[in-house]
Amino acid sequence: MDKATYIFDLALSVRDYELDLQGIVNNAVYLNYLEHARHEFIKSKGLDFNRLHHEGYDAVVVRSEIDYKKSLKSGDEFVVRTGVERDSRLKIVFNQQIVRPADDSIILEARIFAACIHQNKPVEPLIILEKIGLL
Amino acid sequence: MDKATYIFDLALSVRDYELDLQGIVNNAVYLNYLEHARHEFIKSKGLDFNRLHHEGYDAVVVRSEIDYKKSLKSGDEFVVRTGVERDSRLKIVFNQQIVRPADDSIILEARIFAACIHQNKPVEPLIILEKIGLL
Amino acid sequence: MDKATYIFDLALSVRDYELDLQGIVNNAVYLNYLEHARHEFIKSKGLDFNRLHHEGYDAVVVRSEIDYKKSLKSGDEFVVRTGVERDSRLKIVFNQQIVRPADDSIILEARIFAACIHQNKPVEPLIILEKIGLL
Amino acid sequence: MDKATYIFDLALSVRDYELDLQGIVNNAVYLNYLEHARHEFIKSKGLDFNRLHHEGYDAVVVRSEIDYKKSLKSGDEFVVRTGVERDSRLKIVFNQQIVRPADDSIILEARIFAACIHQNKPVEPLIILEKIGLL
Repeated sequence: MDKATYIFDLALSVRDYELDLQGIVNNAVYLNYLEHARHEFIKSKGLDFNRLHHEGYDAVVVRSEIDYKKSLKSGDEFVVRTGVERDSRLKIVFNQQIVRPADDSIILEARIFAACIHQNKPVEPLIILEKIGLL
Repeated sequence: MDKATYIFDLALSVRDYELDLQGIVNNAVYLNYLEHARHEFIKSKGLDFNRLHHEGYDAVVVRSEIDYKKSLKSGDEFVVRTGVERDSRLKIVFNQQIVRPADDSIILEARIFAACIHQNKPVEPLIILEKIGLL
Repeated sequence: MDKATYIFDLALSVRDYELDLQGIVNNAVYLNYLEHARHEFIKSKGLDFNRLHHEGYDAVVVRSEIDYKKSLKSGDEFVVRTGVERDSRLKIVFNQQIVRPADDSIILEARIFAACIHQNKPVEPLIILEKIGLL
Repeated sequence: MDKATYIFDLALSVRDYELDLQGIVNNAVYLNYLEHARHEFIKSKGLDFNRLHHEGYDAVVVRSEIDYKKSLKSGDEFVVRTGVERDSRLKIVFNQQIVRPADDSIILEARIFAACIHQNKPVEPLIILEKIGLL
């Protein structure tokens, strides 16, 4: 995947309660990081998933593909990089990467496929696409 | 994927603190359910990831593919179904499915690829394969 | 506190993702256990915090006092014991205890004070008190 | 409690996955915030709970008292303020407060009592006290 597709960076650091028994960040926690970055990205575009929810539109993840390459440890600072493209008529895909600048390493790469639901039916994610500039 | 490959079932129910703003189980929480089921499965075979960790062997997830089909809600009872097969010399893959018996629906399907690490190097997951009966 | 005040028992077991670096259940997780037990207790009385929320009533925790005595570890089975009494006109207090039957030990004791909020104002928790038999 | 006792401030913001069904930060999550702030405070003094753990010393929370006053919502920025004093020969107490600068409100106040464990026995938390300047 072309690096140029990441258009939003969010810098975070590991919190000790996110570590598991092995002293590394638990896999499920990375999904939280990725979700948080997507929400911040969307907010940076003037949208808000919570507000959309109250207006009857829910963006839902329908598929995730994650390649875990290295682990984050206590105190690590990292950056979640996010890009987005249209995947099909009803789906968009967020390309995400978590990198650790300290040793210039890639922690994981993810492809998160999302659909837009309105009144229990999938609808074209037009409002998202428009704001993101994909329409 | 053939249903017959699921060889271990774990029945659980949703806890309210696992719900998000939309009133459904947060995506990251499903990874916890899946991990818990894999650990219980391994324990049922006489192995223990925590004990392996203290003996210097870590089973690490290297890739996850998850298809989210429906959502779990407050109070839902569900079953995590787990199977496993050898993926390559160094990797095994856990096939997992979360189903909700109440409406006979599939909540998600997952393929979780794991490797075995010893002294920072991948090694053949022989002890796991042997216990599981794949050797 | 008199043991007789516990009127609802919920049996649970530790999931590995709830462990922290020290190999014990993280403190914040106990709050999840306690909350889950209170919700199940309330449900057993025919109430439902989620339904109350949609009817405009929120039960909110206003104070918690927790004494941590021992730690839960991987695989531990435990019981959350719950009782409730009226604390004041506007508050009820849940007395809770987590015990580990295997070694007959008390893991923690908690007092959780809750108020009932309606249209941003505290109201007497009459519906809860009635169902619980404290009215 | 005197405000002057807070000697370490940590600024954080709410992440959407920390919200519950009511649209507010779940109570257990506040414990994570408080713990994270204590760890960062200790690190700012040149100590590290994880390193102490590997040297055989564990700082364990033995009691927590938390008064929840207001709720944090999606997008809220907040500050965790931390102070510490000696409570008894074997215990120290962290005084903590979460404040939201936007409306100058106090979200919660906490007193977290901690002991130091070495070889399964409580010992005087001398190393912590010394670094903090309480010795």
